Amino acid sequence: MSWLYAFDLFGVAVFAISGALMAGRKSMDLFGVLVIALITSLGGGTLRDTILDNHPVVWIRDDLYILVAVLAALGTIVWVRLTRPISELGLLVADAFGLAIFTVIGTQVALAQSAPVSAAVIMGVMTGVAGGVIRDIICNEIPLIFHREIYATACIAGSLVYIALYRLDTPRDLDVAISVATVLAIRLAAIHWHLRLPQFHLLESKTGDNERDQ
Amino acid sequence: MSWLYAFDLFGVAVFAISGALMAGRKSMDLFGVLVIALITSLGGGTLRDTILDNHPVVWIRDDLYILVAVLAALGTIVWVRLTRPISELGLLVADAFGLAIFTVIGTQVALAQSAPVSAAVIMGVMTGVAGGVIRDIICNEIPLIFHREIYATACIAGSLVYIALYRLDTPRDLDVAISVATVLAIRLAAIHWHLRLPQFHLLESKTGDNERDQ
Amino acid sequence: MSWLYAFDLFGVAVFAISGALMAGRKSMDLFGVLVIALITSLGGGTLRDTILDNHPVVWIRDDLYILVAVLAALGTIVWVRLTRPISELGLLVADAFGLAIFTVIGTQVALAQSAPVSAAVIMGVMTGVAGGVIRDIICNEIPLIFHREIYATACIAGSLVYIALYRLDTPRDLDVAISVATVLAIRLAAIHWHLRLPQFHLLESKTGDNERDQ
Repeated sequence: MSWLYAFDLFGVAVFAISGALMAGRKSMDLFGVLVIALITSLGGGTLRDTILDNHPVVWIRDDLYILVAVLAALGTIVWVRLTRPISELGLLVADAFGLAIFTVIGTQVALAQSAPVSAAVIMGVMTGVAGGVIRDIICNEIPLIFHREIYATACIAGSLVYIALYRLDTPRDLDVAISVATVLAIRLAAIHWHLRLPQFHLLESKTGDNERDQ
Repeated sequence: MSWLYAFDLFGVAVFAISGALMAGRKSMDLFGVLVIALITSLGGGTLRDTILDNHPVVWIRDDLYILVAVLAALGTIVWVRLTRPISELGLLVADAFGLAIFTVIGTQVALAQSAPVSAAVIMGVMTGVAGGVIRDIICNEIPLIFHREIYATACIAGSLVYIALYRLDTPRDLDVAISVATVLAIRLAAIHWHLRLPQFHLLESKTGDNERDQ
Repeated sequence: MSWLYAFDLFGVAVFAISGALMAGRKSMDLFGVLVIALITSLGGGTLRDTILDNHPVVWIRDDLYILVAVLAALGTIVWVRLTRPISELGLLVADAFGLAIFTVIGTQVALAQSAPVSAAVIMGVMTGVAGGVIRDIICNEIPLIFHREIYATACIAGSLVYIALYRLDTPRDLDVAISVATVLAIRLAAIHWHLRLPQFHLLESKTGDNERDQ
């Protein structure tokens, strides 16, 4: 299924760019930019493969992944130096595309190892979002995913759609196309109309745990 | 040993609640609450099983774990909306119970793979505390475990007691009961009398590493 | 190759000391100091072995690693209590030595599993720096590695040198010696002359992601 492979590498490139941009905001040096780009683009798949015992992990099996991530990060630095702004919207749309691909691939890998439905959904979401979460943790941010417009909810929906289609006798390529489209549609709608899930506000309890930032 | 299984699920529920409450303090949305609850309750076991190469990890082998964690998190949200406070003390006691169970199970799993004593203790402590540590890191807190009254020290004691009994010819159920009771007793005493270990204060060195928050 | 084994344990001790000192700066209690020391000294190798499916991981295979890390951490506390300052320079030099050893060992382990060159370099760097990165994340710092003078760049160079020599017919001990020396030389030069890589400054984009600390 070689168009999925091409999409996968595209997802890696997009996530590497988003990692490089975050590293640039934190004024990291060249090495920091590369590491953050690699972690953002390959972290989710690494976590998935390690937890599923799916060895060797994807970027050890096929070193094109690392090459694509490194080139995307270097390209980002050069691009930002030469021209000026990276279109925020273009990046968001590309990111949505990468997210959709990664989620479906993660779900696929888990199902191939006969994980139960709940675990397959978690693996799909983890593949899609974990790289960005680790990026944010290293850069000392509360992961945006937990605050931003509908993000992982789109992954959950796409993962469930894929699992449902997988059980039917539809051609595999069609399953992938429909579930990728599901994630994309939800995420793009969320970006366009700024959709958010309701937040769960909990006031500090009176007894007051000694939280650091009080 | 089906009562241990029931206790394990109880521990999962309690840790999921503590994760959901922390997520609520950070005003996360529904998805954020679920993710933090899952990470808090299943993170320690996942780390243990992955490092020990004990595949499939617990929640892939048995999807009741995920179900319990999700229901506990959703129940917490509903409960906090409908009534008001969650009793801080009740939660602390339940948490102590979950901690005790997880520690003993972690030690057990490591011994079953013939890990040396030191590694078995680390695995017990890791199973008990890692979920909470990852929760705190994602929520951008210095993990409370490192500042609070005696916490992981209780795990170390319980793990050592279990290892000692394991080598004797006592019935396994008794080993579990005694070592769970050890963790519980130490932790409840620490809560009641606010026991702490002495801290290790180190003044900044003159040469001054470029720490961020100076 | 028993002198490499001795060097490895020396690296563990040095990293445990640096972890204990960081924990002391954060006023952690005895347990916190031990945990941070263990994570700093064994975290990189654990991550490497887990991702490479190289089980049992190093400190489960051989419990001398844990013993050395714990003794080094306890020794640090006693030393700081009794005398006063730990020489910052001495620590930096020792740290450079540990970094060099860990990098070469990580590269070796990856090559032994026939990882491609790019993955072997990543494994070398990961073994050298991941422990310190996790230490900084738990202590809520932006990992120093991303800001400080040339650090991981030294690892990359040493790892590449090792891979090149590995392919030639030189004696393995010589390969190790030369590549360790490479890391050491670059890192010590960086410390002495405060060498840094150029930073990648990226101004906030106008559209303004909702970053927490704006």
